[in-house]
Amino acid sequence: MPRISLENLTVWKKLEEQAKAMTSPENHLAHLVEQKDRLKHFSLKTLSLFFDFSRQRVNREVMSLLFELAVEKQLQEQFNAMVSGEKVNTTENRAALHTATRQFSKDPVCVDGKDILPDMAEQRDKIKLFSEKVRSGQVTGSTGKPFRHVVVVGIGGSYLGTEFVSTALNGFSDGLIKIHYLSNVDIQNFSQIIREINLEATLWVIVSKSYTTTETLANTNLVNAHMIQNHLDPKRHVVAVTAKGSPGDDPDAEILESFHMFDFIGGRYSVTSAVGGLPLSLVLGYEIYERFLKGAEQMDIHAARAKVFENAPMIAALLSIWNNNFLAYPAQAIIPYASPLAKLAPHIQQLNMESNGKSVTADGDFLNQTTGTIIFGEPGTNAQHSFFQLAHQGRPFPIDFIGVIRTQYEDFKSTCKGVNNHQELWANLLSQPKALALGKTDDQPAKHFPGNRPSSTLVLNDLSPESVGKLLAFYEAKTVFEAFIWGINPFDQFGVELGKTMASSIRNEMAEKNNHPEYDFKNADSISGAYLNMLYQGKV
Amino acid sequence: MPRISLENLTVWKKLEEQAKAMTSPENHLAHLVEQKDRLKHFSLKTLSLFFDFSRQRVNREVMSLLFELAVEKQLQEQFNAMVSGEKVNTTENRAALHTATRQFSKDPVCVDGKDILPDMAEQRDKIKLFSEKVRSGQVTGSTGKPFRHVVVVGIGGSYLGTEFVSTALNGFSDGLIKIHYLSNVDIQNFSQIIREINLEATLWVIVSKSYTTTETLANTNLVNAHMIQNHLDPKRHVVAVTAKGSPGDDPDAEILESFHMFDFIGGRYSVTSAVGGLPLSLVLGYEIYERFLKGAEQMDIHAARAKVFENAPMIAALLSIWNNNFLAYPAQAIIPYASPLAKLAPHIQQLNMESNGKSVTADGDFLNQTTGTIIFGEPGTNAQHSFFQLAHQGRPFPIDFIGVIRTQYEDFKSTCKGVNNHQELWANLLSQPKALALGKTDDQPAKHFPGNRPSSTLVLNDLSPESVGKLLAFYEAKTVFEAFIWGINPFDQFGVELGKTMASSIRNEMAEKNNHPEYDFKNADSISGAYLNMLYQGKV
Repeated sequence: MPRISLENLTVWKKLEEQAKAMTSPENHLAHLVEQKDRLKHFSLKTLSLFFDFSRQRVNREVMSLLFELAVEKQLQEQFNAMVSGEKVNTTENRAALHTATRQFSKDPVCVDGKDILPDMAEQRDKIKLFSEKVRSGQVTGSTGKPFRHVVVVGIGGSYLGTEFVSTALNGFSDGLIKIHYLSNVDIQNFSQIIREINLEATLWVIVSKSYTTTETLANTNLVNAHMIQNHLDPKRHVVAVTAKGSPGDDPDAEILESFHMFDFIGGRYSVTSAVGGLPLSLVLGYEIYERFLKGAEQMDIHAARAKVFENAPMIAALLSIWNNNFLAYPAQAIIPYASPLAKLAPHIQQLNMESNGKSVTADGDFLNQTTGTIIFGEPGTNAQHSFFQLAHQGRPFPIDFIGVIRTQYEDFKSTCKGVNNHQELWANLLSQPKALALGKTDDQPAKHFPGNRPSSTLVLNDLSPESVGKLLAFYEAKTVFEAFIWGINPFDQFGVELGKTMASSIRNEMAEKNNHPEYDFKNADSISGAYLNMLYQGKV
Repeated sequence: MPRISLENLTVWKKLEEQAKAMTSPENHLAHLVEQKDRLKHFSLKTLSLFFDFSRQRVNREVMSLLFELAVEKQLQEQFNAMVSGEKVNTTENRAALHTATRQFSKDPVCVDGKDILPDMAEQRDKIKLFSEKVRSGQVTGSTGKPFRHVVVVGIGGSYLGTEFVSTALNGFSDGLIKIHYLSNVDIQNFSQIIREINLEATLWVIVSKSYTTTETLANTNLVNAHMIQNHLDPKRHVVAVTAKGSPGDDPDAEILESFHMFDFIGGRYSVTSAVGGLPLSLVLGYEIYERFLKGAEQMDIHAARAKVFENAPMIAALLSIWNNNFLAYPAQAIIPYASPLAKLAPHIQQLNMESNGKSVTADGDFLNQTTGTIIFGEPGTNAQHSFFQLAHQGRPFPIDFIGVIRTQYEDFKSTCKGVNNHQELWANLLSQPKALALGKTDDQPAKHFPGNRPSSTLVLNDLSPESVGKLLAFYEAKTVFEAFIWGINPFDQFGVELGKTMASSIRNEMAEKNNHPEYDFKNADSISGAYLNMLYQGKV
């Protein structure tokens, strides 16, 4: 790919022209949505999903140019390079093969000349076998009690995806095993979990790709100390999910079992690897987990093969770039009208912001464009009663609305104002994008709605494991397509390193003080020193 | 106050000049923090809180001008007008007296000539009495079982503050009664709670100021139907918190008890009224709740009386305006290094975005300034492993870091790398603002950190009820101070009305269809009609 900066592309310049034109009154969304067959021309149906971008601030010219940009930036070729095992993570000289974890077809995916699919299948088989043994009570804790609690010990990508999926599919759980997340190094996180579990019946799943993550190691030490104090044998209560060859991947390690993830799978893309696979299979059963994988696989195939104007995640990515770089929206909200999707936004917040919050291209050139979008969200209608005042009348930001047609719970029925609760939810789902787009004039300025606020709506038939898999893979593909447009590497995360280095220096000051109470933090800068004094004095 | 637009104020123009100067390399934060006594001059200690703004992009000139702006906009006078009962909510012709709910001094606060403090005290007494009766088992459910679960049925301001405080003070609960939140109209929210409770031992607290909130009424119907189906008597399991004179405030209503909130308390400011008071007293005991109120009262007095350069929430508000309007940051993150504060950001998200996401002044003039900040956040260190890549190397946004010196749990001890878990948390709390401010140059562009990214740090001695009260009132005062600078009304929320109106039309279409299956949604617009067809057909 030639190193032409984005803003020198002809298509980029044309899009800038279109963005200017889009500010004129006749291009207000209230007019755009009135166009004949607006919904038909600005939506698509695929894989039992409906993706509606009719309330985005686009017209046919803009969409054609965005499609042209997709072709110019070779999005599909880049995606296919990724799924076929090319080393697209250039700064770390690695492939990025989260898609391989859910590829059930046998077409080989080679890394350094070796087909990795058998390794993926091996991990799945191992997960299936182990989770069945735990669920059937064949494997128990050290006092012989069957496991009834699973605690995932991991932070960031080691738990956010799993939390999203376990929450989304909670209705499919038989309730045999409860799941908890010990992510924060804060002792209060640990003590909260201790209140909720039965220690004898608890299996701890330590998740760390490198097995050097400080928070996770500190929590693992705490867990082990607590078990020993309570006369339990840690090696009968702990399993590890870690990279092949990491310090945690020791065949002589005294733990129940260890599972592999691979250097070509980043934490934020790892929920379909053993990172998510093991805890999800323990809680939901392996069959549900595999159905979830198969949904994700369907979306991968769609992203890799569907033509640009039929490609849902690619169009979503193009619209993100349009909103971000041309219409200058700095943020995006994700509002699912479905409580089980409550953890979708926190997961996508990590997935997207950690992938695309970069300042340099994959070639090492500094970008002239601002990349990365601030992602946030809560389920609807909760969000309406929280921050939608600002969405309607304050600083505007685009929104992804998500709807689910069929609810899991048909057994709870009552009506209010002539509709049942699920219909009430939908009445709101339909009204919000409309109100944001149209606005309303009012003589009283406080009741004036400017409108022209963009959104997309994605509708799923249900919250089956397959649907949740598709939804996950939709956002994963959207994220990497955005990166491919900007020309950045969505698979590294050097931005987290500086804080770690500095934390290490401060930790050394503390360790020194812990050993020598008279130590005066002489190597700390003056501000850090003041804080360290507060901490050790026990008050501000 | 004369109607001079902000940008015509001399001090505003001077601040604009300063903002330009602030972009020059010598004003990079890496240089600013090196100034002698930087921390001393740009921090303050009050009420056992330490508020550090040394890593904000300000110098002495900027701070002087901001203090001048505070005086010019009569912030303290406006705050005192609010706490003394003036009708500062001009569009609704109401006072805004959340501060009165926690005023224990006897200085009268008059609304329409009547001292309202006795009403506040009466509600507190009633809460104390009722919560003690429930906790002691004197009041039970209809089968005689003592209450062990409380479900708050309410949305937005009717639960977000309570959820924040109940999570923050969970360590103070004796575990007798568990709390749950039924906010979303989504049936899945209800079904999830049903899985967690024992219906016979459950008290439902219906919270709605107007008692017309559709979601809450729909959920109340569902709750009642479910109790009847399970042979329980709803009137022995339900209490209401609602405005005096609302449809829910019916003395003949067949419920256990009803509690009042008042028209001068908005939902998002209501956690210190019966809205938070009743559920918190049930779960934590009234004494803990009153200690929380007393902490909030201390901060109210500080906000009302402390001089501008010693006034923590006022300075925080001035810095928000500086970041928002002069340095053009659209968003702000709140990152507490304390798991119990996990629900602080969602609460402040509502408090601030619903209060200040406005486009017109209280006088009805359209603003030329963008108001309202996108607020989001997760606890640290979790946030570091989620979206801090973007904070360090992508789109910048200011951050409020929050630290707590003393942890509640001294009993869990283990060390890793020479420090205990609480110290590890602090090593990270100290390193992140530093890394964001300083940045780091590197030959490899992907490892270059631009720095100059602003933050404040707020330190509490502990997470006692008093500290949590202060923290709440700090953000409440900050929010209204911001509004007073912009000249907007932070107490109305007309921006949520248009969506409600449109939802009502769509609900009518559904109700018609429910009654007449052949109905063709003829009154719906074409896009809504397409969605209604999907919903009733049961698939996309």
